[in-house]
Amino acid sequence: MFEAPYLLFLGDAPDSLAAKMAQGVYDWRPESTVGQLRMEGCNADLGITDLSIQDAVAAGAKTLVIGIANRGGIISESWKSLLIEALEAGMDIASGLHNLLRDEPDLVAAAEKNGCTLHDVRIPSVNYPVANGKKRSGKRCLAVGTDCSVGKMYTALAIHREMQERGMKATFRATGQTGILIEGNGVPLDAVVADFMAGAIEWLTPDNDADHWDIIEGQGSLFHASYSGVTMALVHGGQPDALILCHEPTRKHMRGLPDYQQPSLEDLRDVALRLAQVVNPDCKVVGVSVNTQHMEETAALNYLKELEAQLGIPAVDPFKQGAGRLVEALECV
Amino acid sequence: MFEAPYLLFLGDAPDSLAAKMAQGVYDWRPESTVGQLRMEGCNADLGITDLSIQDAVAAGAKTLVIGIANRGGIISESWKSLLIEALEAGMDIASGLHNLLRDEPDLVAAAEKNGCTLHDVRIPSVNYPVANGKKRSGKRCLAVGTDCSVGKMYTALAIHREMQERGMKATFRATGQTGILIEGNGVPLDAVVADFMAGAIEWLTPDNDADHWDIIEGQGSLFHASYSGVTMALVHGGQPDALILCHEPTRKHMRGLPDYQQPSLEDLRDVALRLAQVVNPDCKVVGVSVNTQHMEETAALNYLKELEAQLGIPAVDPFKQGAGRLVEALECV
Repeated sequence: MFEAPYLLFLGDAPDSLAAKMAQGVYDWRPESTVGQLRMEGCNADLGITDLSIQDAVAAGAKTLVIGIANRGGIISESWKSLLIEALEAGMDIASGLHNLLRDEPDLVAAAEKNGCTLHDVRIPSVNYPVANGKKRSGKRCLAVGTDCSVGKMYTALAIHREMQERGMKATFRATGQTGILIEGNGVPLDAVVADFMAGAIEWLTPDNDADHWDIIEGQGSLFHASYSGVTMALVHGGQPDALILCHEPTRKHMRGLPDYQQPSLEDLRDVALRLAQVVNPDCKVVGVSVNTQHMEETAALNYLKELEAQLGIPAVDPFKQGAGRLVEALECV
Repeated sequence: MFEAPYLLFLGDAPDSLAAKMAQGVYDWRPESTVGQLRMEGCNADLGITDLSIQDAVAAGAKTLVIGIANRGGIISESWKSLLIEALEAGMDIASGLHNLLRDEPDLVAAAEKNGCTLHDVRIPSVNYPVANGKKRSGKRCLAVGTDCSVGKMYTALAIHREMQERGMKATFRATGQTGILIEGNGVPLDAVVADFMAGAIEWLTPDNDADHWDIIEGQGSLFHASYSGVTMALVHGGQPDALILCHEPTRKHMRGLPDYQQPSLEDLRDVALRLAQVVNPDCKVVGVSVNTQHMEETAALNYLKELEAQLGIPAVDPFKQGAGRLVEALECV
């Protein structure tokens, strides 16, 4: 893995969702971050120090982390001069984008010239097996969402942190680039070849102690036309004992799909549970994690209360309220 | 694409399912096949002439087609001497396996020495987009199965042939290696990177005349722990107007998964339809295609009759009875 501390590169992110990779690294590893680098027109802001390349080097930054993800995962030409400036100042670059740093001749040349390293965490580094569906020991929890980018990774990280604080045996299992940057290992699932997706998740969550929890980061949504196949592989490869439903109630339509409405939480519960029970008949839906960042506080609390009454399971915003009640629900599984 | 006629290589196939790629090419393109090549211990047999490499060359074969698929898609070392013999006799080789001919130095050397070509149809030749879920014109039919290898490709090919004979506008859309060998183009879906699976299927089945049918080859099963993610991408990328349920009633367990039972056709119908309606609320399940090859004839006919009564839609074995009734059901969509 690459060297801390990091300068988080937000580029020309059109909105804060596009910078969720940077936000995630900062939220869970603030001690490894020296500041952010934003280009003109950037509409994302982590609320931390804005640094130039030279400022960042002076502050000790070892690696520029590309913390912006655009659709399709392209390395934008407009970022190039800053990325080359970073390499010339001696920083390494780390990226989780689909398009690889190592396939950009100008970046490769600048890295070679300056003795720097380009880290593509997006590339699977393992030949994953085909899934075998065999029952594994230990317990597994998977976060599934009504949509993409509704807080599945945050939910998993918050549950994991809470379990650790309670002295429970637990491992966060990263399945996306941000999660991998945070945890230091994992499976870049959306870059895995189709036939090996579920096998990669089995590999990531092997046999373990009976009282050990794998807290698996979710991806996409079973209801998202672009990425549902990735989610399906997580549901079947992850063999979950427990599902946490994740939701962002203010979303007007499915992310990136203006013609699609979000499903109801009941729909998500029923479809995800039916599919999870193919590999684990005892799987249960134990809680709801709601991302209320765009809601007024009273409205958010009322909404959570209504959800609990409606679904009969705990409904919390783990970012604001902690994941304690979700962990208590998991302890009963 | 590669040159006909073909010598179909069955290698050391442990059973006839392992040679389904060769069987498919022969069944749908018999005029392009000169014979089969089987190694000692091969338990598959297409019932056509057994030829040595020299016999095949004398019979005019231009390409040796690797018609065997083992788990994981490896090129077996035990096949090598025959493959090299074929290259030395001047034949090209075509393969749909995961592991590529071009990554085998001994094959590459023999091909270069003899001026022959190695065709890896498994490699996607297009940079597929991320799916956008937009409603497309024209009609689409997708075959979904209770399990892998239950006859989804045969069903799609039979429906397509029947539609052509009736003068309907229809295209067979291949999504696997055998289908691609048969149709001459398509998407090798199980080799596509996860994020682009559904987009590849949208690309394969674009806008078309309102009365044109895309007959999409299915892959895997929503109930198969190893490959369900691939199936999910077909359901959402294919945007089907109609689903055909495919089933093999004598299967003791899910293929390759001894601990898993097949789902009922009702389960498949309900789960597949619910998921398809995410992208096309008007989608319908219009028929059942049963592979009765391992059933006695009277038992098979009774079974089909019972299924029809039970599910209220036509149930046929298209290989034995033709796809006429399935096409009639599709004409009502």
